[in-house]
Amino acid sequence: MTNDVILSAQNPKVKQLLLLQQKSAERREKGLFVVEGQRELQHCIEAGYEVDTVFYCNALYEGSLPKTAHCFEVTEAIYERMAYRGSTEGIIAEVKVQQTTLADLTIGENPLVMVLESVEKPGNLGAILRSADAAGADAVIVCDPLTDLYNPNLIRSSVGAIFTVPCVVCSSAECIAFLKERGIQILTAQLQDSRLYYDADMSQGTAIVMGTESTGLTAVWRQAADAHIRIPMLGRLDSLNVSVSAAILLFEAVRQRELTQEQN
Amino acid sequence: MTNDVILSAQNPKVKQLLLLQQKSAERREKGLFVVEGQRELQHCIEAGYEVDTVFYCNALYEGSLPKTAHCFEVTEAIYERMAYRGSTEGIIAEVKVQQTTLADLTIGENPLVMVLESVEKPGNLGAILRSADAAGADAVIVCDPLTDLYNPNLIRSSVGAIFTVPCVVCSSAECIAFLKERGIQILTAQLQDSRLYYDADMSQGTAIVMGTESTGLTAVWRQAADAHIRIPMLGRLDSLNVSVSAAILLFEAVRQRELTQEQN
Repeated sequence: MTNDVILSAQNPKVKQLLLLQQKSAERREKGLFVVEGQRELQHCIEAGYEVDTVFYCNALYEGSLPKTAHCFEVTEAIYERMAYRGSTEGIIAEVKVQQTTLADLTIGENPLVMVLESVEKPGNLGAILRSADAAGADAVIVCDPLTDLYNPNLIRSSVGAIFTVPCVVCSSAECIAFLKERGIQILTAQLQDSRLYYDADMSQGTAIVMGTESTGLTAVWRQAADAHIRIPMLGRLDSLNVSVSAAILLFEAVRQRELTQEQN
Repeated sequence: MTNDVILSAQNPKVKQLLLLQQKSAERREKGLFVVEGQRELQHCIEAGYEVDTVFYCNALYEGSLPKTAHCFEVTEAIYERMAYRGSTEGIIAEVKVQQTTLADLTIGENPLVMVLESVEKPGNLGAILRSADAAGADAVIVCDPLTDLYNPNLIRSSVGAIFTVPCVVCSSAECIAFLKERGIQILTAQLQDSRLYYDADMSQGTAIVMGTESTGLTAVWRQAADAHIRIPMLGRLDSLNVSVSAAILLFEAVRQRELTQEQN
């Protein structure tokens, strides 16, 4: 198989890829986003995403190419311009956006769901997705219609978890209705009227809900909560990174669930 | 009090500060490092560090100035060049390096110590320090004589925890001798021959030891270990971020210790 070779950084295909990386409006309009790196692209394909266009650099990339995609070879100089990461894996692709909705979610028994009422930094959301994958969470739900799951910083920091963990964007009202209908308890991370997180029973179906890095949760979530939970702060500083907090809470659920399984 | 005003970015004092930010060799030679931001500088002063020189921008900074330091006012344009962070807190200082050694550590009863056998990314070490502060850890020990605790990325991601948590750099042999002498059990994070981390008793004096992001722990630590522990990976990816793993392990120790206190 021979593929077309792109020799100029001014090629419209190169320019479109750079726009897709930089602008969420462009991603929305074209229904495409950018995936970089062999492992990430593999996770993406396994998750059923449709790869539209692939750019690869022969000097850097040794793997195979998706059969269904348009493939273009690029020079090393052009690849370096297209690559968002410092790494040199030599493959970068345009992939079709898939909108997962609450109705698409298949939630098991005693689900573990991570809910984020908007997140300021895409890198933090990516890091939370990575931890949610490790904790075997059923889904991550982001209650902020403005969040774009296909930000390159998010994809990068998720190391592919954006493709392995079901992830939905919806409103807080929709999310609360979804959780209540399924009898999933709502534990909100907040200081006021809270108990220590390890004193909450997370062995039943549980949604752990966290607010933004700067302002925390809004009243709609505080009122919908079955319990408020907090991580004790035993030092001199007054906060933890939001993705670190999420991981501590998720893995307490993992611990409790393993314990419950052993006892049964 | 009136202070000298620096009007040129070519001023030797401005150039020295930039060098201290950029080069660990310069920090070693001069015995100085750079602290940026009001809160970080406050933590630094409270921890007993000696502030050598302060640069502040009147348009951005509204707080007070340390009495003992040389203070220089700079223009907003110069401040923006000096500031490592995007933030605009308007104060940046040169502070004298303090080398803490193992002999300086005051370790309480049933200590909780985080040990890192070298860390590749300063940002990860800073994030671990932040979590160690929150978990009330007695110390963080970095077993890598090449690590420079005063890297600006480290200070930034620690949000000041570099000043609130005792932090020592030494060799692995020195660290192992220190822990063994004090009867502090050594739990190494590794997959081989490991138990789940929550099945390890961390209520006694405990050192949690983690390796580098890419290659893990060396044999010297694996052999010194009282037990090997692992975090279960329940998803499709095969690793967690090193600072996230550290936080999960530290807070399991916090949980077990609270539980033990309640029972006594």
